[in-house]
Amino acid sequence: MIVRTTHLKKFNNKWYKPGASKTTMFLWYYTNMFFFASRWLPISKLKINLLRMFGAKVGHGVVIKPSVNIKYPWRLTIGNDVWIGEEVWIDNLDDVRIGDNVCISQGALLLCGNHNYKKSDFGLITGKIILEEGTWIGAKAVVCPGVKCNSHALLTVGSIATTDLEAYTIYQGNPAKPIRTRVIES
Amino acid sequence: MIVRTTHLKKFNNKWYKPGASKTTMFLWYYTNMFFFASRWLPISKLKINLLRMFGAKVGHGVVIKPSVNIKYPWRLTIGNDVWIGEEVWIDNLDDVRIGDNVCISQGALLLCGNHNYKKSDFGLITGKIILEEGTWIGAKAVVCPGVKCNSHALLTVGSIATTDLEAYTIYQGNPAKPIRTRVIES
Amino acid sequence: MIVRTTHLKKFNNKWYKPGASKTTMFLWYYTNMFFFASRWLPISKLKINLLRMFGAKVGHGVVIKPSVNIKYPWRLTIGNDVWIGEEVWIDNLDDVRIGDNVCISQGALLLCGNHNYKKSDFGLITGKIILEEGTWIGAKAVVCPGVKCNSHALLTVGSIATTDLEAYTIYQGNPAKPIRTRVIES
Repeated sequence: MIVRTTHLKKFNNKWYKPGASKTTMFLWYYTNMFFFASRWLPISKLKINLLRMFGAKVGHGVVIKPSVNIKYPWRLTIGNDVWIGEEVWIDNLDDVRIGDNVCISQGALLLCGNHNYKKSDFGLITGKIILEEGTWIGAKAVVCPGVKCNSHALLTVGSIATTDLEAYTIYQGNPAKPIRTRVIES
Repeated sequence: MIVRTTHLKKFNNKWYKPGASKTTMFLWYYTNMFFFASRWLPISKLKINLLRMFGAKVGHGVVIKPSVNIKYPWRLTIGNDVWIGEEVWIDNLDDVRIGDNVCISQGALLLCGNHNYKKSDFGLITGKIILEEGTWIGAKAVVCPGVKCNSHALLTVGSIATTDLEAYTIYQGNPAKPIRTRVIES
Repeated sequence: MIVRTTHLKKFNNKWYKPGASKTTMFLWYYTNMFFFASRWLPISKLKINLLRMFGAKVGHGVVIKPSVNIKYPWRLTIGNDVWIGEEVWIDNLDDVRIGDNVCISQGALLLCGNHNYKKSDFGLITGKIILEEGTWIGAKAVVCPGVKCNSHALLTVGSIATTDLEAYTIYQGNPAKPIRTRVIES
């Protein structure tokens, strides 16, 4: 048996299209650093306007807290009445679609990038993330590449969603497992 | 059966009292940003004086490392000989009481805010956190709202305390479960 | 039975040698803050030169992303073709040796410091971390003090490695457990 090894030198992501020009990426990098990943100007409205200028689709009633890190706004769709908590990280190498009435709590990570660990060249793999309406991603939780959180799914604090979450279901752990139905009583 | 949905637009936290005037909150926001959440002035004494000016009760022998994030100092009580590690986040929408000889390691989060996910209006729920004397909150661990960590309880690295921790007991996992007694030999 | 308590006042780490002069530590503190833990200058080459100036051994083909936090470069060895992701934290109170073709993904923590929780004086314990060639530390994962990750081990997103990881094996959870063999097909 040949035991193969990883060679990061062979890594090739030239097929990958970020979806914007180098100039736009450069400008966004510093806009993100200055207005989003910082704390000095905690005003959602301004941030939403900036996101839209860079190609994001953002609904009304959206709140964006300080110290948020967004990779590519042109790959981001946010519905109405969505809350994005402090220190949330939307690492959207791929499309992220956030439905209405979604809450992403403080410190959560939406992770769209992966690597093919079965290949010597450690090839880049990206996966879309869909958060359907009413989902709640708990503080310091992580949603992994390609995961769809169906309507009103709930990922508890610090849990890691590696597979799709069923609607109206509460998930916990690493990897996150269903623990209860989410009943909305009134 | 009626399947109900979340409406963040209906969210109403007007009943919630932060415990300080808007001016104080504004001043603290930038004091926290400038002196606590930053790294440029790694001097505990100054930070402790600032915390006291903003209403925190802080004992002697307290160490506060760089890049710490504190929500409301007027809701914070810290005993003697307490260490607060780098990148610790005290998100104290509710009271946080830290006893003597407590260590909160780097990257840990004390989380006092929750939402009523059973209600359409996603109502705010807050819970006090009590860390009794001698407790150790490990690096990147999270203490959830309403949790009391009894004397010398230990929450291991990256673990999530969702229920009270018993005294002299070591907890691990998400949710954290007791794994061993903590015996202090000498 | 005498129930003993922790006394952080008795903590004594005078035996501990950081491995550099106070002046070097002071200069590194602000170099790390200004060039590494920040985002404004996302240029690996410059960072690698700085690391080498402060005593790190760094190979070729190394990538260092923004917002990285490194404790002591003089205790750091990095091989060839290594990637250090955004917000990675190398808290190397002890030696950290990173082999060739290692990927440390965004938000991961290499933690070399521990405390003797069985002693009243909460004594400092440090442990080296070794990441052998081809290992992949997933996003927001933590490698604990003294852990050796053998060749091509893989720690999944958000997992906590508390014991050595076997070669070509995938680990998940808190504490991380082996879940699969890592076969590199081509």
